[in-house]
Amino acid sequence: MSEERDRAIGVFDSGVGGLTVVREIARRLPGEDIVYFGDTARVPYGTKSPGTVLRFAREDLEFLRTRRVKIVVVACNTVSAVALPALGQGQDLPLIGVLEPGARAAAAATRTGRIAVIGTMATIRSQAYEAALRSLRPDLEIVSLPCPLFVSLAEEGWVDGDVAEAVARRYLEPLAGSGVDTLVLGCTHYPLLKDVIARVMGDGVVLVDSAEETAADVVRVLERRGIRSDRADGGNISVCLSDVPYRCREICERFLGRPIERVEQVAEHAATERELAWHDTTAADRTGSDR
Amino acid sequence: MSEERDRAIGVFDSGVGGLTVVREIARRLPGEDIVYFGDTARVPYGTKSPGTVLRFAREDLEFLRTRRVKIVVVACNTVSAVALPALGQGQDLPLIGVLEPGARAAAAATRTGRIAVIGTMATIRSQAYEAALRSLRPDLEIVSLPCPLFVSLAEEGWVDGDVAEAVARRYLEPLAGSGVDTLVLGCTHYPLLKDVIARVMGDGVVLVDSAEETAADVVRVLERRGIRSDRADGGNISVCLSDVPYRCREICERFLGRPIERVEQVAEHAATERELAWHDTTAADRTGSDR
Repeated sequence: MSEERDRAIGVFDSGVGGLTVVREIARRLPGEDIVYFGDTARVPYGTKSPGTVLRFAREDLEFLRTRRVKIVVVACNTVSAVALPALGQGQDLPLIGVLEPGARAAAAATRTGRIAVIGTMATIRSQAYEAALRSLRPDLEIVSLPCPLFVSLAEEGWVDGDVAEAVARRYLEPLAGSGVDTLVLGCTHYPLLKDVIARVMGDGVVLVDSAEETAADVVRVLERRGIRSDRADGGNISVCLSDVPYRCREICERFLGRPIERVEQVAEHAATERELAWHDTTAADRTGSDR
Repeated sequence: MSEERDRAIGVFDSGVGGLTVVREIARRLPGEDIVYFGDTARVPYGTKSPGTVLRFAREDLEFLRTRRVKIVVVACNTVSAVALPALGQGQDLPLIGVLEPGARAAAAATRTGRIAVIGTMATIRSQAYEAALRSLRPDLEIVSLPCPLFVSLAEEGWVDGDVAEAVARRYLEPLAGSGVDTLVLGCTHYPLLKDVIARVMGDGVVLVDSAEETAADVVRVLERRGIRSDRADGGNISVCLSDVPYRCREICERFLGRPIERVEQVAEHAATERELAWHDTTAADRTGSDR
């Protein structure tokens, strides 16, 4: 058991948004090593079909297996919504998605019993949030809405201002004033747009981001299985990506909330685990502001 | 030679935007069979690194080789900009990109000698349009600008209205009134936003879309090599995609400008050419309007 205890926590996402979940896990478990895989070569998943999302998720999981992790956190709402049960079949590794924790937080937060969920097209079409919320509280009224452009806005860094406001209004105005008092941010990119979303939704609406609740789940599962690390701090965070495009590190650091020493580029086909390159931090890399 | 003449024209793109190029080719060469491959499982390419774009482009080309095409049209501006020379190395198949034709059309259109180019981050960072334009006319003044959100707007179908207007203003207002008289739409998605782009740029500015000029190049190369089909019409268009997500056919038909009988889903790794599924057209599929 002691060997398993020393292994890393694995986390994957379609891109770099899942680093917000890593941030929360590292805050609660500063002694744990964490290996993050972001499938930046094939991002986004949320516009793709459930079959393709499952196929990619299996490869992502396979990569984390090669790193001998002790638990896997699926920090991608789309994968959590459309592929988690199939992904877990025949797995001995504990898998934690972000959807159940988000639903739990929302069900606890609402007073009116009216909840809205926003996410990618794939997440919303799966109706997985509805199912999770209804299994917690069958009396809930749930409205759900795909907001695909929010991902591009967050990646462009246009998280406030005219354009963000116009997009948020176009998507959310039908929800504001509908009696909803809780809004689930069902995509790891959306928390970056929290301010403008809150402004459009109005004062009475609580925004739920599943990162904190997911991290709490990780702690619970590690303790229940007796595989929580003994170390109090000094955990190492490894960031592995299938592509390292321009300004990638800058964006990663924005999500993780701390500097990243190096990014390792690995093939998106885990089985082969061809290591493509190392991207060490340099001053030139960090400035990345020639636009 | 006659056997080669009967083979199809191959066209590939990161997604379905390249169908606008297929439309132009089919208009000029209605007797030719065309095989289109859109890498919808890994779309977009324009946010990814040049190394990853080249790797994907090689696999796309390999797929078209398995279909024994006689010529390959790279209908993706990002691939044309960052990967075309490397992709052509050691190839016997003629390769036609969209960048040179677009540059030629722009150089012919300008009167002031001031040209602006808009495209994905990868296309703009490559400076391939600048190089192509300068090799045609060294005296040109060229401004170039990445407009990543235009792709998401086109895919969301928000091609006009408040949001499109706000995004176009934010990107293009610095260009309008700068003396530019020609704007190259350096991404196959951008022609869908022509109206709003034209409005923001003002009356004196010509918008250049490389689809027409690229199709003219295809005709020239086929004739020069003596491999143009003898048939006057009745050519078949096959649409192959690596993912067939929700509302995919609807979007394809918008780009192609005609109904598509069926979409064939193939693996994005050409070499294996695992056929994943057939997606035949059904009424249910076509409505696709439950949002």
